[in-house]
Amino acid sequence: MIKYPNGQKFEPIKAKERKSKKSKEDISISASNRGMNLEEDINISNEWYKERQIALITKRPTPINIVKVDYSKGARIVDAYFEKQSTTDYNGVYKGRYLDFEAKNTKSKTCFPLSNIEKHQIEHLKNVILHGGIAFFIIQFQLKNEIYLLDASFVIHFYENGDRKSIPYEVFKKEGILIKQGYNPRLYYIDAVEAKYFKK
Amino acid sequence: MIKYPNGQKFEPIKAKERKSKKSKEDISISASNRGMNLEEDINISNEWYKERQIALITKRPTPINIVKVDYSKGARIVDAYFEKQSTTDYNGVYKGRYLDFEAKNTKSKTCFPLSNIEKHQIEHLKNVILHGGIAFFIIQFQLKNEIYLLDASFVIHFYENGDRKSIPYEVFKKEGILIKQGYNPRLYYIDAVEAKYFKK
Repeated sequence: MIKYPNGQKFEPIKAKERKSKKSKEDISISASNRGMNLEEDINISNEWYKERQIALITKRPTPINIVKVDYSKGARIVDAYFEKQSTTDYNGVYKGRYLDFEAKNTKSKTCFPLSNIEKHQIEHLKNVILHGGIAFFIIQFQLKNEIYLLDASFVIHFYENGDRKSIPYEVFKKEGILIKQGYNPRLYYIDAVEAKYFKK
Repeated sequence: MIKYPNGQKFEPIKAKERKSKKSKEDISISASNRGMNLEEDINISNEWYKERQIALITKRPTPINIVKVDYSKGARIVDAYFEKQSTTDYNGVYKGRYLDFEAKNTKSKTCFPLSNIEKHQIEHLKNVILHGGIAFFIIQFQLKNEIYLLDASFVIHFYENGDRKSIPYEVFKKEGILIKQGYNPRLYYIDAVEAKYFKK
């Protein structure tokens, strides 16, 4: 039995209703596809937050190791390779406080695997906490279409303790903040930051 | 009349003194060269501050626009070009506060020319101040071997007002904080941050 988000049960569609029903599905698929590019959603949300003077968050450029530059072509890079990010993808300022976070998505429905978190990133986020900054992860459960803010301390804990290299979904349900999704901003993640770190 | 930093007047060197004098000059040149690479000095100082758990400041990688990647060579970038940094080179956290700054050097002895400051960077630093972050410039007067921290508000003021596109040296003497230089850290710039923004 398929349940729609509004609680309605799935019912077979009559032929003449099919077209409008299909367009609803299209919207749903479109929303799902849109959500798949978490990084793009965060970047667009950051622009929105900047324009409205709510927060200033920037993405660190991907670090690249440059091997050869052709100056005869006006400083064209002709040989280079990607380096691993030793910090996180995003940092910035909200209400004077320093914010630092990494965004990841998973296709798992039961847990967030820690295999694509680098040790350097964990060390970096430990340092952020040490210096009084706000450190967290934005984790997207793609197949559930749910995005959570989870304080970095939980990720650090699961990274450094226990055998299993993943964080159960239940931890996000219990300890995370569900990030509201919309059209603009796509992710209301600063609301989640406010709720987690600024409200008493 | 040339005056040395210790206040001694320049005197012609006798032939047999010339060698030792030269080696003194070598040291001076070496120190000057070291200072010429302001970015490297800041990076090394940041490492020192991180290791001693005093502050966590990172350099944003240079943004690069990638045109072509050769995956047959293991994701080797074969065509790309440099983009202008739309923010600043450095940001980070000190005592929970957000820090953001740009570092520049000048060979002028009388002023800091604003020609190599981008409008985007000014906008970015205005935003940092708006959100309660700490925004400043680290400016090196290369020929004086002096490095100053100057609050971004002064740079913004001179950038947006007046005809001359430079900040007089006297402004740095009066409003800036002279950054102590040493071997390790090469620049005690967090001391300057502390003096300017944290001490009453």
